[in-house]
Amino acid sequence: MVQKAKSNIMWGARFSNAPEHALESINASITFDRRLYKHDILGSIIHAEMLVNTKIISKKSGMKIVDGLSTILDEIENDKFSFKVELEDIHMNIEARLHDLIGEEAGLLHTARSRNDQVSTDFRLWTRDAIDELIVQLQNLMKAFLKKAEAHCDTIMPGFTHLQVAQPITLSHHLLAYLEMFSRDVDRFQNAKSRLNECPLGAAALAGTSFPINRDETSERLGFERPMSNSIDAVSDRDFCLDFIASSAICATHLSRFAEELVIWTSAQFNFVTLSDKFSTGSSIMPQKRNPDAAELIRGKVGRINGALLGLLTVLKGLPLAYSKDLQEDKECMFDTFDTILVCIVALTGMVSDMSPNKKVLKDAAGLGFSTATDLADWLVRELDIPFRKAHKITGKIVKLAEEKKCQLVDLDLKSLKTIETTIVPSIFSALTVDASVTSRNSFGGTAPLQVELQIKRWKSELY
Amino acid sequence: MVQKAKSNIMWGARFSNAPEHALESINASITFDRRLYKHDILGSIIHAEMLVNTKIISKKSGMKIVDGLSTILDEIENDKFSFKVELEDIHMNIEARLHDLIGEEAGLLHTARSRNDQVSTDFRLWTRDAIDELIVQLQNLMKAFLKKAEAHCDTIMPGFTHLQVAQPITLSHHLLAYLEMFSRDVDRFQNAKSRLNECPLGAAALAGTSFPINRDETSERLGFERPMSNSIDAVSDRDFCLDFIASSAICATHLSRFAEELVIWTSAQFNFVTLSDKFSTGSSIMPQKRNPDAAELIRGKVGRINGALLGLLTVLKGLPLAYSKDLQEDKECMFDTFDTILVCIVALTGMVSDMSPNKKVLKDAAGLGFSTATDLADWLVRELDIPFRKAHKITGKIVKLAEEKKCQLVDLDLKSLKTIETTIVPSIFSALTVDASVTSRNSFGGTAPLQVELQIKRWKSELY
Amino acid sequence: MVQKAKSNIMWGARFSNAPEHALESINASITFDRRLYKHDILGSIIHAEMLVNTKIISKKSGMKIVDGLSTILDEIENDKFSFKVELEDIHMNIEARLHDLIGEEAGLLHTARSRNDQVSTDFRLWTRDAIDELIVQLQNLMKAFLKKAEAHCDTIMPGFTHLQVAQPITLSHHLLAYLEMFSRDVDRFQNAKSRLNECPLGAAALAGTSFPINRDETSERLGFERPMSNSIDAVSDRDFCLDFIASSAICATHLSRFAEELVIWTSAQFNFVTLSDKFSTGSSIMPQKRNPDAAELIRGKVGRINGALLGLLTVLKGLPLAYSKDLQEDKECMFDTFDTILVCIVALTGMVSDMSPNKKVLKDAAGLGFSTATDLADWLVRELDIPFRKAHKITGKIVKLAEEKKCQLVDLDLKSLKTIETTIVPSIFSALTVDASVTSRNSFGGTAPLQVELQIKRWKSELY
Amino acid sequence: MVQKAKSNIMWGARFSNAPEHALESINASITFDRRLYKHDILGSIIHAEMLVNTKIISKKSGMKIVDGLSTILDEIENDKFSFKVELEDIHMNIEARLHDLIGEEAGLLHTARSRNDQVSTDFRLWTRDAIDELIVQLQNLMKAFLKKAEAHCDTIMPGFTHLQVAQPITLSHHLLAYLEMFSRDVDRFQNAKSRLNECPLGAAALAGTSFPINRDETSERLGFERPMSNSIDAVSDRDFCLDFIASSAICATHLSRFAEELVIWTSAQFNFVTLSDKFSTGSSIMPQKRNPDAAELIRGKVGRINGALLGLLTVLKGLPLAYSKDLQEDKECMFDTFDTILVCIVALTGMVSDMSPNKKVLKDAAGLGFSTATDLADWLVRELDIPFRKAHKITGKIVKLAEEKKCQLVDLDLKSLKTIETTIVPSIFSALTVDASVTSRNSFGGTAPLQVELQIKRWKSELY
Repeated sequence: MVQKAKSNIMWGARFSNAPEHALESINASITFDRRLYKHDILGSIIHAEMLVNTKIISKKSGMKIVDGLSTILDEIENDKFSFKVELEDIHMNIEARLHDLIGEEAGLLHTARSRNDQVSTDFRLWTRDAIDELIVQLQNLMKAFLKKAEAHCDTIMPGFTHLQVAQPITLSHHLLAYLEMFSRDVDRFQNAKSRLNECPLGAAALAGTSFPINRDETSERLGFERPMSNSIDAVSDRDFCLDFIASSAICATHLSRFAEELVIWTSAQFNFVTLSDKFSTGSSIMPQKRNPDAAELIRGKVGRINGALLGLLTVLKGLPLAYSKDLQEDKECMFDTFDTILVCIVALTGMVSDMSPNKKVLKDAAGLGFSTATDLADWLVRELDIPFRKAHKITGKIVKLAEEKKCQLVDLDLKSLKTIETTIVPSIFSALTVDASVTSRNSFGGTAPLQVELQIKRWKSELY
Repeated sequence: MVQKAKSNIMWGARFSNAPEHALESINASITFDRRLYKHDILGSIIHAEMLVNTKIISKKSGMKIVDGLSTILDEIENDKFSFKVELEDIHMNIEARLHDLIGEEAGLLHTARSRNDQVSTDFRLWTRDAIDELIVQLQNLMKAFLKKAEAHCDTIMPGFTHLQVAQPITLSHHLLAYLEMFSRDVDRFQNAKSRLNECPLGAAALAGTSFPINRDETSERLGFERPMSNSIDAVSDRDFCLDFIASSAICATHLSRFAEELVIWTSAQFNFVTLSDKFSTGSSIMPQKRNPDAAELIRGKVGRINGALLGLLTVLKGLPLAYSKDLQEDKECMFDTFDTILVCIVALTGMVSDMSPNKKVLKDAAGLGFSTATDLADWLVRELDIPFRKAHKITGKIVKLAEEKKCQLVDLDLKSLKTIETTIVPSIFSALTVDASVTSRNSFGGTAPLQVELQIKRWKSELY
Repeated sequence: MVQKAKSNIMWGARFSNAPEHALESINASITFDRRLYKHDILGSIIHAEMLVNTKIISKKSGMKIVDGLSTILDEIENDKFSFKVELEDIHMNIEARLHDLIGEEAGLLHTARSRNDQVSTDFRLWTRDAIDELIVQLQNLMKAFLKKAEAHCDTIMPGFTHLQVAQPITLSHHLLAYLEMFSRDVDRFQNAKSRLNECPLGAAALAGTSFPINRDETSERLGFERPMSNSIDAVSDRDFCLDFIASSAICATHLSRFAEELVIWTSAQFNFVTLSDKFSTGSSIMPQKRNPDAAELIRGKVGRINGALLGLLTVLKGLPLAYSKDLQEDKECMFDTFDTILVCIVALTGMVSDMSPNKKVLKDAAGLGFSTATDLADWLVRELDIPFRKAHKITGKIVKLAEEKKCQLVDLDLKSLKTIETTIVPSIFSALTVDASVTSRNSFGGTAPLQVELQIKRWKSELY
Repeated sequence: MVQKAKSNIMWGARFSNAPEHALESINASITFDRRLYKHDILGSIIHAEMLVNTKIISKKSGMKIVDGLSTILDEIENDKFSFKVELEDIHMNIEARLHDLIGEEAGLLHTARSRNDQVSTDFRLWTRDAIDELIVQLQNLMKAFLKKAEAHCDTIMPGFTHLQVAQPITLSHHLLAYLEMFSRDVDRFQNAKSRLNECPLGAAALAGTSFPINRDETSERLGFERPMSNSIDAVSDRDFCLDFIASSAICATHLSRFAEELVIWTSAQFNFVTLSDKFSTGSSIMPQKRNPDAAELIRGKVGRINGALLGLLTVLKGLPLAYSKDLQEDKECMFDTFDTILVCIVALTGMVSDMSPNKKVLKDAAGLGFSTATDLADWLVRELDIPFRKAHKITGKIVKLAEEKKCQLVDLDLKSLKTIETTIVPSIFSALTVDASVTSRNSFGGTAPLQVELQIKRWKSELY
């Protein structure tokens, strides 16, 4: 066996008849583009019906084609279709099968069309559906965050900067920050969708066609806003893929930020929240572990989406017009990005819904690290008319005093405070509790429960 | 000297007192964030005036602050301001100078504000201006392409797929494809702008403030649509940077595609266009060279913008809320991206304006490689009612015949054609010239002059 | 059907029982890590035998385990093994099957081991084999380039800078430049291999084990240089993946450069080489096309490898020690990178072997664009003792003259030359032919046939 | 002022005479490549001396050139040199100044050389020096880790997987894991250095030269191993840049992992270590904060290095041979990468040296979360001969029992344990303390103090 480990017995065989087989393997896309079957058939049906309506083909031929395509759709959906690598892609697989079914009239379908505009149409349809699905799932995620936020308007926790306790906030307020992010994600996907929603069908190979086609008809019936205006652009543009992956990468970045927080929050040291068993997993050697695997996976998945984005940007860099085969590299990264971001969104939705915040731990943590020091400084400014920068310095001295006395700010006595700033009065103590701190931050968008409730109200009206 | 080459005499000295100095060097941002000075001062003035209006500070103090800030603006713009690294960033440099100018009342300015919301405000203002500038320059670029397109509606050239001659098109049509791309770029930047145009000022460190500030006032006076709704999001969000760089990367990709075409087109072998001397440069050793340097640089620059995008995505991956120092990495990539994309757009505008297409070469090239084979196939379908796939096969045979006879399709005689398909009639020859080919592709968005003129008309009404 | 296009009927069903199913889907790795089966079984056999040798388990139990594992290997290789998603990964699939086969003694196998060190061992074994395979294929590619170079020592072509004709070179010399690149690739992969070739087995979960294992034995029998020295590093390190993908990305960059050249060289305008039919493909609408698809795909594939590199770097950024689930993201990018770079290397090997250079076209092109201008300048320096920079200026004037006369340098008459530089003598003309130019560049590593033959000789002795 | 915010007054002026100025701005590299001055002058001196030795130029001219270049070196190092943008790059700036100083003989220097081989030589020399410097600093970093590790061989802390307490380890062992990583980094940089250490000088523009130069002489005197073998490769290769940045990116990834740990460890919740004031910074609004800014910056900096890597890979993708202007994009990303990784290494060296582990907190944390559960399972296997998988299940039950009793494993009584597994004997308790756990993991590379001391010994002999 040791020898086996040293030789490479594994891949040699694979290319025994290489490199011609290598070419076939590099060239064929049917292993992944079969996923477009539904959109391809739909596009073909609408195209065929337009060819009939414009009298480019006869009604009879058109009906045979549409019937044949419907049969193929059934076959594929019922796993009765045999995909063939030698037919390279989904388009030729379907067209060849159509020929089997209806004979030579199948050849009429490709009139006034090329694979270049066909694949672009199929892929835009797929991407549009993918965006619709992601928006629905993002809204579910937002609802899960909103629901949890609603339940924790009065759950006080530390607000962090630099992972250091900064100021007390409410958990609700923290969760609502993510609604802002996800809402921008939805907006970004919607922008992407409206930018892609033009129909390339009819651009043919790159120059348009001499047949009297009706591009408005196909465009409208396929749900596009309008036909694309320039046939060369129509076949060479992959902006819609870049928009989709870039939007997904930004969204995944947001997910990764919360995932990181979950990993930290579920550590024994933080113990801020407990995940349900469903979203934790055990260890093969350490029976006691409850690992936040799902959060870690979500955090890690941003890597592959960033990779997909860079990958496609690299493919498109310096590519002359119009169609080049490099563009075939657009599919797998899109499919993988969609699958990845979708599963991350759905998994996070479940995790957030099931997550139990440990309220006492959170509240106790909120008081750590002199978290109300800013409140102290603000009190000095507001009540004693001391300029902010000076107040900041006084506060620094008071914090140092508390450090020396190993107590919290609220535990200092008035006399000690007066040694630092003589004009301090007892009402200062009311500013130094975490509850007072949270309540006082009542500026618009601030963490005071009043403001947080306004946020919740707005989101409810938007999401429901 | 050889010894010198082997030792490393260069950097050792730099960190002789390291690593404390390393920290200063890694920490300070004034070397690059000084670029925000105008937006920082503007934000501070509006903030100070709001503090006056809400009676948080006195009118007198407010006026001193505003006057002081105006003086500082003058100093910076007239190169009389001395930036200090030990003050770390632009905010502290300005505030320290304000203290020099007006004394302790300078300390009032930071009331109800933190560097966290301040820098986010400054940077959004800068980004908004940057987008406005890019849109103007993109429109100039579009006008340059449009003008050139208008002059070449009847300049016939080969349309390429796979860099192989595919079908004859017009140069105008090809150039107009880029207007579609740039127009999507403008749209993308506008989306980015409207998504960023919310005001973080007042979010303070992360939780809002206890001072009775008026966020609507600062937001409106700074030209924002509304204050940001969640103070934690306000200080931790850098989506607007990602949106800006992602939009720039896609735009740079478009520029790189035309740059690549220029490099290929100006080769001796293609000789499709001649660049003006202004945009070509010589060689230190080969006196005859006229290198398309600017095009190559534009092609190459996409690399650094892609790098900036991935760099910032990496920074933001898994970053817990709210502010972390990692976010300081947002600036240099943004500034560099703006400078890079701007100079590329402007340089390409000049290159396109000055570029001279070689009409005869283009026309001759359009006839190469049996470029009207599709027209032949379409003619068979249209005139002889042969299904497309069969017509395609017949055309293949005719092309093979022409290859054997070493002639173009239009040069074959009727008799030869009839040996392949007996029903062919003489009118076929009218379909086989490049002029006929171009004219026939009259579907919407196609390359026929009629369609191209419609495109031009539309763009003129949009851009002027 | 139009309605269907507008609704999103496709993915909704998939997560009907989500998000728990999402978690399973995000968590399970068996769909891709089954590829490690052989290395996993090998590692387990060696581990079991070491447990016997150290008397941690009995010889009898050890034999049952080894027999069971051998049976499983047979089952998998003969497609008789049923992989189960609920068992999550390849390790648990195999261990569960072992339990079926031999009962409770299967539980002994995981003694003194954890999935953390197990997967790291498996994956290093796989990577080592992958590198061995790539090196073999790279050497095949080098042989193909070498063979073609050997056949074209006297095939003169233009050397390009900026895609402008610069100086005449030989095709052989150009091809040999790629051998340098591929040779560095081999070196880089070998470095990667020697860096990875340490054995993590025995690191257990992260801290080592209390069992008296013999790490030297397992390491040596698995072909590693030594056991890894630090058990925490052993389970958290993925440098070997980064090294592998980074090396592949650089190699892919080299491939993409030649692929780009092939795309340009096979254009009608260049027509420098002809690819065999095997490596060209047709068009669905333009029957005459012979597209260099394989070259375009190779050019495009660099995108996904760059993406994989960035993706994994992103995953590893800021990951605390020791093992985190994010590391599961290491596999797919590695497998995909290996498959991609392998198929690209093999395909390019075939393309180069079959490629036919068009010698006359190449020679004619070599004379274009005053390609011997440098020779002229060098002649002035060498024969007339004119400083190089001055010679450069004189040459510039002569080139301008030739441009005006629309002739090549060699076609200018002596009288005209003397109007520019009076001391020029007739021997200058011998320096201005492309043959003379090529022959004269006889410095070490230069394009003169003598030098090129030396290069070929060296490569032959290295590769055969 | 509000209006100002809405208009874009900032950049318009900059390109008032654009786009010609844009070209100059995009084209010139002197703003960054001046950094190569020393290497450029060194390369020129060696080149000139070789021209003398081969009698290509006279000794007298050679001496004038060398003297002139030495003068220029002095001028630059004493800030008396005036760099000119219109001379574009460092090479022309120096050559022009040489002409000022010594007249027309300056023109002899560029004999048998081109900017293409010149810049490649300069840049390889610079990169070699940069690598040397980084290796020195990495070794300093390793020493700092080693010293801290030496001081903490008996400091027990929790070992984490998934940021969950897994098993007790020593801090020393944890720190030594980073020495493994940095040691691989050094190895990777050394590989990069030996791969780049070939001399391109003499490749001229791309084809070599007709002058009888001595490439062995220049190569040897510049400290290279040998002249590069193929002149086309010599001017078009940028592998050495990719190797350098890829090595830096992997190194930065390692740094980011420890930086992340520092951020987490210095949180109030973990409180594992205290950073010195030098490496912490305050807050403008929260006087009590001690932020781990340096750690966060190091964590963030990996982004720009990853960006640089992907940026340069993008630039090189599909670039035809030999030199293209795109290659000018190689410099800034290299310089920035070097500056960034250097400052990160130096800053981390300081942070680690000054860092104070909180031993009691670490020890207490090590006992959390049933961290000795694996020891329990191992004890069952070792002492009671229970197969590992079964022992694992029994341990699970015991952990559950402790959870219910809210106690640690070591606090359970024998009777309770026997209810789960009757054969358990009292010696089990000795396996359940964190000290016993650490001591027991005495396999090679394990966390037992004995093993850790062996590691330290080995590192000391390697580093000192």
